[in-house]
Amino acid sequence: MPKIVDHAERRAHIAAAATNVISRSGINPHTMREIAEETGYAHGASRRYFPNKRSLLIATFEHLTADVNARMQRQLVGMRGLDALEIVCREILPLEDKGSGHARVLLAFWEHASGEPEILRIHQANNLRWRELMRRFLFEAREDGELRHGVDIDRTVDAIAASNAGWLVTSVLMPAAATRERILAAHAALIDPLRKPMAG
Amino acid sequence: MPKIVDHAERRAHIAAAATNVISRSGINPHTMREIAEETGYAHGASRRYFPNKRSLLIATFEHLTADVNARMQRQLVGMRGLDALEIVCREILPLEDKGSGHARVLLAFWEHASGEPEILRIHQANNLRWRELMRRFLFEAREDGELRHGVDIDRTVDAIAASNAGWLVTSVLMPAAATRERILAAHAALIDPLRKPMAG
Repeated sequence: MPKIVDHAERRAHIAAAATNVISRSGINPHTMREIAEETGYAHGASRRYFPNKRSLLIATFEHLTADVNARMQRQLVGMRGLDALEIVCREILPLEDKGSGHARVLLAFWEHASGEPEILRIHQANNLRWRELMRRFLFEAREDGELRHGVDIDRTVDAIAASNAGWLVTSVLMPAAATRERILAAHAALIDPLRKPMAG
Repeated sequence: MPKIVDHAERRAHIAAAATNVISRSGINPHTMREIAEETGYAHGASRRYFPNKRSLLIATFEHLTADVNARMQRQLVGMRGLDALEIVCREILPLEDKGSGHARVLLAFWEHASGEPEILRIHQANNLRWRELMRRFLFEAREDGELRHGVDIDRTVDAIAASNAGWLVTSVLMPAAATRERILAAHAALIDPLRKPMAG
């Protein structure tokens, strides 16, 4: 009987393993070998699905953002306004133990994207989706009377997006400065002033 | 007469050219050739000074930060408090035309640093110097009565450092979102609330 291989499944399995490997060690000359070890497939199998660094980085980025976006969507059911904004930010920020590992994958992808317009567009599509979510939730916050008078929503999205990206970088490069407590304190300092002061 | 080569000068010249090349095109398989073209030296000369990507990235990072730090120091003479903090941030943020080019060099260096403890220390030493400057100027602002009551200086340094790093990334990956005007608006939203409200 011929061996039946589910290519999509195998591809996803390798992408997941690649995300783990790059999370741990960054991308380096041993990356492909480590992925082969992690999956248990022969070295050639990973190479067949991901023949170069470029294809590997795209696959890990997509694996990782699909994961983040799925978690976000699950939590966003029935949520709106500043609570929903909080969910989006907490999924993007490197708050979990494996946060800085994921941030390392993103950093490798970003670096690669900076020189390749086609990869840059993959990043931008995802980033614009996140910005659009934040924007929508800020408008909802205004509708619901949660938002302080005079908040500039587009500039606020800019500031939150920059801060989230900055914390991802910081978690990789200055891990001692990127504890959960410090990230959440800086994040709160950005979000709390948006809130309308309590009446009374 | 034997040809006398000033090695330090030539090294600095190549590092400057490398910074320009990586600013324009990121780091890629053509980088060494483009550096040779930009310097006018033979390909072998650049290779001799910078035999690999690692040495090249360290040299461009050091060239670039030495430049930023020198400009900072010149402007900081006689300055203190929030005005001095502003000078530091404006030199780090990608506000100039070549800002996103420099940010691209940083991004390449960061990605490389994420996998190499020795390179990471070079980044961390510079980053801690910048954080220490911000911290000092915030304490001066408190001494001088510029600072709003209750500002947490260490958490403020965290937030500013994350925002600065985030804007560097944004200028490379989302250039349309990282105009001078938008960067300065987000930066002001971070700094203005630190200021003690005017009496009266």
